[in-house]
Amino acid sequence: MKHILSALLLLMPFMVFSQVNEDSAFIAQIFETALTQGKSYPDLEDLCKQAGPRLSGSLAAQKAVNLTEGKMKNYGFDSVYRQEVMVPHWERGASSPLVLELSEGSKVIRPMPICALGGSIAGKIEGEVLEVMGWNELSKMHSKEIEGKIVFFNRPMDARMVYTFGAYGTCVDQRVFGAIWAASKGAKGIIVRSMNLRIDDFPHTGSMAYSDSVVKIPAVAISTLGAEELSSLLKADAHLKVRYEISPKLFPDALSYNVIGQLTGSKYPNQYIAVGGHLDAWDLGEGAHDDGAGCIQSIEVLRLLKTLNYKPSYSLRSVMFMNEENGLRGAVEYARYCDSMGQKHIVGIEADRGAFAPRGFFIQANPEQLKHIQAWLPLFEEYGIYVIKGGGAGADVGPLQQIDEDVVLIGFVPDSQRYFDYHHAANDVFSSVNQRELELGAAALASLVYLLDKYGVD
Amino acid sequence: MKHILSALLLLMPFMVFSQVNEDSAFIAQIFETALTQGKSYPDLEDLCKQAGPRLSGSLAAQKAVNLTEGKMKNYGFDSVYRQEVMVPHWERGASSPLVLELSEGSKVIRPMPICALGGSIAGKIEGEVLEVMGWNELSKMHSKEIEGKIVFFNRPMDARMVYTFGAYGTCVDQRVFGAIWAASKGAKGIIVRSMNLRIDDFPHTGSMAYSDSVVKIPAVAISTLGAEELSSLLKADAHLKVRYEISPKLFPDALSYNVIGQLTGSKYPNQYIAVGGHLDAWDLGEGAHDDGAGCIQSIEVLRLLKTLNYKPSYSLRSVMFMNEENGLRGAVEYARYCDSMGQKHIVGIEADRGAFAPRGFFIQANPEQLKHIQAWLPLFEEYGIYVIKGGGAGADVGPLQQIDEDVVLIGFVPDSQRYFDYHHAANDVFSSVNQRELELGAAALASLVYLLDKYGVD
Repeated sequence: MKHILSALLLLMPFMVFSQVNEDSAFIAQIFETALTQGKSYPDLEDLCKQAGPRLSGSLAAQKAVNLTEGKMKNYGFDSVYRQEVMVPHWERGASSPLVLELSEGSKVIRPMPICALGGSIAGKIEGEVLEVMGWNELSKMHSKEIEGKIVFFNRPMDARMVYTFGAYGTCVDQRVFGAIWAASKGAKGIIVRSMNLRIDDFPHTGSMAYSDSVVKIPAVAISTLGAEELSSLLKADAHLKVRYEISPKLFPDALSYNVIGQLTGSKYPNQYIAVGGHLDAWDLGEGAHDDGAGCIQSIEVLRLLKTLNYKPSYSLRSVMFMNEENGLRGAVEYARYCDSMGQKHIVGIEADRGAFAPRGFFIQANPEQLKHIQAWLPLFEEYGIYVIKGGGAGADVGPLQQIDEDVVLIGFVPDSQRYFDYHHAANDVFSSVNQRELELGAAALASLVYLLDKYGVD
Repeated sequence: MKHILSALLLLMPFMVFSQVNEDSAFIAQIFETALTQGKSYPDLEDLCKQAGPRLSGSLAAQKAVNLTEGKMKNYGFDSVYRQEVMVPHWERGASSPLVLELSEGSKVIRPMPICALGGSIAGKIEGEVLEVMGWNELSKMHSKEIEGKIVFFNRPMDARMVYTFGAYGTCVDQRVFGAIWAASKGAKGIIVRSMNLRIDDFPHTGSMAYSDSVVKIPAVAISTLGAEELSSLLKADAHLKVRYEISPKLFPDALSYNVIGQLTGSKYPNQYIAVGGHLDAWDLGEGAHDDGAGCIQSIEVLRLLKTLNYKPSYSLRSVMFMNEENGLRGAVEYARYCDSMGQKHIVGIEADRGAFAPRGFFIQANPEQLKHIQAWLPLFEEYGIYVIKGGGAGADVGPLQQIDEDVVLIGFVPDSQRYFDYHHAANDVFSSVNQRELELGAAALASLVYLLDKYGVD
């Protein structure tokens, strides 16, 4: 027995080597197929152009449900189905541009493009402007300085942070909580600098919150260029007036769907590895990077593995979550449903950081599991992926951990430099996506799913 | 003595640690300065918009010489000067689109955009088309099959190669040697598929060669979309005719300049670390990625180090090489001049792969030097740079090795996925550059120059 063990131990380096070679060869096939016979690029074009701006509850969102369901059925996945979920239904309506009026001689400055923040009430606002860099500054001011004014939150994203989502994270509180903060001090409206590192003329929308205990006030985003201009005009003329009018409307909750495709596992059919993105998108652009790319890449993961005739041990799922942007209802419902059916997820992977060249994966797992997954890094390096480390996976897979603390969550991390050029803005359209970057991302995800399916998470 | 040595050895880990900390802190300052007070983006805009398409010998090239010289003087570099060099002077003139005529019923198909290859003679060509995938195929054919025809080289770039310059390298022979190969078999013209991985409507120009022993024939590039269409039309109608007319002109060599800026070293003033790009650019676009970015980043390297009050040991140079695209005369003259003046380069760094997010450096050096430089990799990782390895540095620094085989050559390697979308085409314009990607590249180069200056190459 001891001799056999010794012999096996001697053989181990070779076994590991041939295993690595086998994995390396299969991953090469995945990348080759994605880059030469990939469907992600035309599929994303269909989603962007045939469905289009697809905020929860909209007709376009329903088109996106039909379209992705149809695609997965056409690709012959083992099962494809929808999951009902009631979602918020907010519509933007028309917006006026922001008009600025100088106090001296009432000279009117050029109108600037703005957009209502997602969830804002309607309103027509006119007044003086108080520029602040955030709650820290606002909280120290006396209400008298603020009452009847429009608060202008102008703290920019921190350009020093190389990973731009970090800069977003330290800045987005202005958009989410600005209306509550400002109203609690008596302001009648807010203008928020767009979450964008580039100086340009696109206002960026995004979710915002109201509080039941504070009056609701209309909230808009201004472009980064507009914010810079408004700020310098205010320095010259503190009594400058602005006016804007927005007319969004909140409708009753609407019936919508998560869309799920599956390749059923041969060994553990009731244990799941899910990869997903969110099907809803803000209404100004086409949701190409956010998050058409993640949805289509998730479909492509299963299509690539099926095309290469891979037979999974676990059941693999591609999940289009509905309503990430303004509710997360789809993600919550997906987790609830799986829990109620006794469907155990071993891994939930989220792709929601844009269609850029893949750089790595962020892992939420215990240290042993992290180490186990990190050991695969050498297989990814020739594809430009050098980072597997602990970090947040994403909003849509989060609820899976609430129903099962053992699940491993993974976030796909492409290059972040250009993401906020497009995020929630009118230029997040199909033409802003590079085909190869999208395809490399899909291949990276498929390779990870292959390794997870083959070797598990421990 | 022995005790002191032991004490020193005990202290070494701390010394190394504090050294790393010091370098890490300085590199953080470089990146912070580049990202928050960088000049590369507005400087590149000036080069693209004020000088514009600047092929060697053109008025725009002269404007680019004046502009970059002026910028370096304004930044207060220790010395800024020009170096005379005679360069080729070729002008494109007007081009007709490619017109296709079906043999049956002489139906004329839509005209397709083409462009003369750089250096082509003028000519008006009409004839049947022979599609081939390269010299391998053409060389096996009998001249009778080729005589009087137009050879259409249609081998695409290999999408499977993740590093796209590799795919370019295995494909560009068609553009460079196609006219010689085709004429040697009796063809009267060539059409070459653009070196572009994307399917779009931009023809890409680039250098081509003639041979004194073979008749010169007019050579054009067709867009990738045009190439796909032409190929499928030929499958349906092998006797399809095409016609095109181009009217380029070769003028006598013109006087032009390399432009050089310098921070003089305190310890080794006559030993140099040079970082450079090429100032000339193909005439269809604005030369934003190729290679306005490399020039402007090279200037920014010295500006950043000067701004941070860094006093170099070696003399640091920013070199704008003239005439990389169709002659390399500037690079050859720079090396010759340095040799004649006894100016020894310890390192030559080239930035000529576009203004994309930095990924690494390719090193031409002996194994010990490579190892010495690779030891700095941990300092770069938080900026997304994970690769320092052996590889070709670039065309413009190449001649430095011919005059001194001890010089270390380094090529800056940004992400390659999007480079050939723009390379040598009309869309290589300022708006295709992302500010942060450009700035991160400049900071990466400045950090490398700092480490090279501080620790040398051995």
